[in-house]
Amino acid sequence: MNSTNGTNSNGPIPITQGPFAASDKVYAIGEREGVRVAMRRIRLSATHSSKGEAPNAPMVVYDTSGPYSEAGAQIDLKRGLPRLRQAWIESRGDSETLPEISSAYGKARLADGKLDAIRFPNLPAPRRAKEGKNVSQMHYAKAGIVTPEMEYVAIRENQRLESLGELRRDAGIPWITPEFVRDEVARGRAVIPVNLNHPEAEPMIIGRKFLVKINANIGNSAVWSGIEEEVEKMVWATRWGADTVMDLSTGSHIHETREWILRNSPVPIGTVPIYQALEKVGGKPEELTWEIYRDTLVEQCEQGVDYFTVHAGLLLRYIPMTAKRVTGIVSRGGSILAKWCLAHHRENFLYTNFEEICAILKSYDVCFSLGDGLRPGSNADANDEAQFSELETLGELTKIAWKHEVQTIIEGPGHVPMHLIQENMERQLRVCHEAPFYTLGPLVTDISPGYDHLTSAIGAAMIGWMGTAMLCYVTPKEHLGLPDRKDVKDGVIAYKIAAHAADLAKGHPGARDRDDAMSKARFEFRWEDQFNLALDPDTARSFHDATLPAESAKVAHFCSMCGPHFCAMKITQDVRDYAEAQGIEAKAALGRGMEAKAAEFRETGGKIYVQ
Amino acid sequence: MNSTNGTNSNGPIPITQGPFAASDKVYAIGEREGVRVAMRRIRLSATHSSKGEAPNAPMVVYDTSGPYSEAGAQIDLKRGLPRLRQAWIESRGDSETLPEISSAYGKARLADGKLDAIRFPNLPAPRRAKEGKNVSQMHYAKAGIVTPEMEYVAIRENQRLESLGELRRDAGIPWITPEFVRDEVARGRAVIPVNLNHPEAEPMIIGRKFLVKINANIGNSAVWSGIEEEVEKMVWATRWGADTVMDLSTGSHIHETREWILRNSPVPIGTVPIYQALEKVGGKPEELTWEIYRDTLVEQCEQGVDYFTVHAGLLLRYIPMTAKRVTGIVSRGGSILAKWCLAHHRENFLYTNFEEICAILKSYDVCFSLGDGLRPGSNADANDEAQFSELETLGELTKIAWKHEVQTIIEGPGHVPMHLIQENMERQLRVCHEAPFYTLGPLVTDISPGYDHLTSAIGAAMIGWMGTAMLCYVTPKEHLGLPDRKDVKDGVIAYKIAAHAADLAKGHPGARDRDDAMSKARFEFRWEDQFNLALDPDTARSFHDATLPAESAKVAHFCSMCGPHFCAMKITQDVRDYAEAQGIEAKAALGRGMEAKAAEFRETGGKIYVQ
Repeated sequence: MNSTNGTNSNGPIPITQGPFAASDKVYAIGEREGVRVAMRRIRLSATHSSKGEAPNAPMVVYDTSGPYSEAGAQIDLKRGLPRLRQAWIESRGDSETLPEISSAYGKARLADGKLDAIRFPNLPAPRRAKEGKNVSQMHYAKAGIVTPEMEYVAIRENQRLESLGELRRDAGIPWITPEFVRDEVARGRAVIPVNLNHPEAEPMIIGRKFLVKINANIGNSAVWSGIEEEVEKMVWATRWGADTVMDLSTGSHIHETREWILRNSPVPIGTVPIYQALEKVGGKPEELTWEIYRDTLVEQCEQGVDYFTVHAGLLLRYIPMTAKRVTGIVSRGGSILAKWCLAHHRENFLYTNFEEICAILKSYDVCFSLGDGLRPGSNADANDEAQFSELETLGELTKIAWKHEVQTIIEGPGHVPMHLIQENMERQLRVCHEAPFYTLGPLVTDISPGYDHLTSAIGAAMIGWMGTAMLCYVTPKEHLGLPDRKDVKDGVIAYKIAAHAADLAKGHPGARDRDDAMSKARFEFRWEDQFNLALDPDTARSFHDATLPAESAKVAHFCSMCGPHFCAMKITQDVRDYAEAQGIEAKAALGRGMEAKAAEFRETGGKIYVQ
Repeated sequence: MNSTNGTNSNGPIPITQGPFAASDKVYAIGEREGVRVAMRRIRLSATHSSKGEAPNAPMVVYDTSGPYSEAGAQIDLKRGLPRLRQAWIESRGDSETLPEISSAYGKARLADGKLDAIRFPNLPAPRRAKEGKNVSQMHYAKAGIVTPEMEYVAIRENQRLESLGELRRDAGIPWITPEFVRDEVARGRAVIPVNLNHPEAEPMIIGRKFLVKINANIGNSAVWSGIEEEVEKMVWATRWGADTVMDLSTGSHIHETREWILRNSPVPIGTVPIYQALEKVGGKPEELTWEIYRDTLVEQCEQGVDYFTVHAGLLLRYIPMTAKRVTGIVSRGGSILAKWCLAHHRENFLYTNFEEICAILKSYDVCFSLGDGLRPGSNADANDEAQFSELETLGELTKIAWKHEVQTIIEGPGHVPMHLIQENMERQLRVCHEAPFYTLGPLVTDISPGYDHLTSAIGAAMIGWMGTAMLCYVTPKEHLGLPDRKDVKDGVIAYKIAAHAADLAKGHPGARDRDDAMSKARFEFRWEDQFNLALDPDTARSFHDATLPAESAKVAHFCSMCGPHFCAMKITQDVRDYAEAQGIEAKAALGRGMEAKAAEFRETGGKIYVQ
């Protein structure tokens, strides 16, 4: 990879670009017009043995990195990515472009000439459902329609390359069909986050019958660090495998930063609109109003945000349940709303205005991510009354969202010891009617600051196996500070491991293919293939080179653990050769020997130990 | 901490020494003579609130680091650590010092003047059971005797400080009593690895009714890197929490290196004797003999090794079961023996000589760690016929070891996807009669080289929760190269997290105390206490300082995530203040408000949403 591409007025754009080692971007073509699903194909070297050379089929893997990892791709941040879904959206005829953006705040930003220098230069016209129309994927699914988005995700989940003449899988593995995708979306058990106004994103699906997804949070800095840096955070996270990115930016240029991110993001973008609403009232929760929040929703819907965290389940009567907690309320959104509720002694305005929020979201196809404002911030507070009361309310709200055919996922904890994880999943499935669960970790102990990506990956892998559809990453800086580039990568890789471990444990069709290819490469000392098949090829290679830097070591038939004189892996070859030399099946060969041995045992009087 | 202490002829000794920040070494005194259990006490600062200052009791934690972390301790590697258990061993009267070491190889090393420069200078006389005596803790336990070692571990497991006047725990928490320890050791469900010849070690217990332990492997280098470096690896690993250390050294100075490590180790030391035996025959497995192996066992017993990995369950007839595996035989010891068995077409000599091995081990009180030579090296091979056949044999051997009253633990895998972990634990408990399980990870996917400490910590935490008594660490360099200092620490911390998460999930009495202290410190913005309570205070502090380096940030009542203007944690204080201002219990306060609210709802016609 390289880190420069073109220039802008500020100098070189430091966007990470270029293919992974030994990888090509390939496309599987669907039946519907324009369905062209990007995947990464890893070339593998041949197996060399005494019998000669045998090729190894390339490994095709799910790819979240978008055009940035395509060789020779022309990336121009000022133009944004190609509008992959534009034709599909237009052809449905149920939405229209608006003459101007609807948000008062958005209009004011647009009118502010001082912002011209940092504004995305080619702002597209916003699009919204026509009067009385619902443009959500759930609406189409319930009407029995298979959209191109549904076919796209079906192919993507299968990593299906029939159209490329590379049917990798054995017959008999259950395919994920577009109709299955439709049915899961229709019953609310999966969501496809695809705002009308984010046609650049490659469709993906979040649901427990599909591959477990991960989310990376970016943009926590209060100071605007420049377009390139903000976009690069997203590109960097998706390069390593983030399936969605939440932009949690604060500061005075949230609106403009978000525009740059959306126009250049190949993955769905989520936000917590209450954060921006709070900025608009100078950081004082008690000054929040429904009108300000509503305008913020519309502003972000028309920019193209694909899902919103909405803490509508945090009710006034639940707040006192947190008074005796060890760590009270730790969710930022939850505490903003708790403060508002207390200040006014009124019910949460997200709850009281929930149906109007639904009406907005279905006009753009934005998903709900119903926030867990009362999630536990410590193992001591896990699974308590406050947490589960809010979860019940999220379940009620899910029913209302579904009544409006708004796609909905449910956020979950947090800090939970291992033995209490399953209860979280079981309750969520029950009270939220199988809407997809989206958890933060959970962290299985509180005493590991500096390592909480790892601590939470333990809980994430487990809850992913149990049915959580998406895992929100935690970085090593959690509880301590702001993540840097290394932290983001460490968090993403930790969560790719957790999600993949969950896919394996769930028996997702084909999930083990990459593991098996890795194991075979390991057994055959194909070092380059091991690096290239790794979740993080760069680190695998550099760790290997730290011990055995020479090029020759990468073709050596031994590894650094046992050294050249003796090798555990090599002995299995002896086992196989031995079996083969006998001209019979290995098992029978040794069995025959054992029969003689057994006879010998009997002759010596049947004692177990003879010397 | 500092890294120098005194000098030797080669210059400064780079042994890591000194207390952890804000920590004292404290001792709990037992009833039996000389039982003085070292623990680490972390001083906490006071809680400041509107009501004034309230002190926080210090947190006492389990401490594996030995005298090295005691302030002002005089460490002299040439003298070794104090011989803590010497008087207990002597007072039992069932062992005797030998006029010379028994091993032929050991004698030859001793006679070689060229080795004088690297030899431990104050070699103690070896000790062995008197003729016909069994000196194992299991033997004493079965005879109903509570040894000082048993009382030591009981106190250590409780982190019990009654003798210091600091009874931290609530009444009602079940104490681990010395009698309970005895009963668990007697029935084989726990082991106390305490070789007569390693009296320097602080007794610890491995069993599923106790805290989950971790092991760190050191010494994989083929080149002798000097006394200090070899000892430092052990000191470094135990500083961060290794409960035992396995010395897997290879090369020409294994014997002398091991002596230095043993004389200076505060934790039990394990080895795989077949590794050294292989060195003695020039690395050619087929040239191994029982006599060479036997001499190696005696050599290491008299040096003081506390437990031996013995791959006696790998039978000739199981070897062909590995021929069809993806990764064949990956255990180094397993493959050595497989090669020997194939070369001679004879049964594994560790199996055929098992009773004689028992006779040796009980004369020194060395524990068996029955090795899983056929553990799976990939998810594809998990839980297969080869693995479980060997496990059955390990169960038979456990019965034989117990007949000799030799303490025994069982080694387990390896690479296992999450959904197959539980079967490993359940089978092991059943076929090995509840002997403690000691697993390597397991790794829950194969595709994460460079991150396998994390991948395996997921499996380790789960299997620890299910009942595994000790977890063998994996470092980030697994499958790639030799671990350096950072890798060892990363591996140890990952496994402390896994083990502690397992203790929490098992509901081990008091396990959550440290988590709760951390959570309280977090909630109260006591930053220094958060660092000091962390498993790795240094990293926690440096990560915090990377974002907020100023000293003032460490007393700030906000964290780096939300910044000074808004703070989630702070809002809970508002919740509490609110409740208090009403002069009533928080819950009642809001409840009262809600009643009025509810009446209002009813008046407006009972609609859920009112604006």
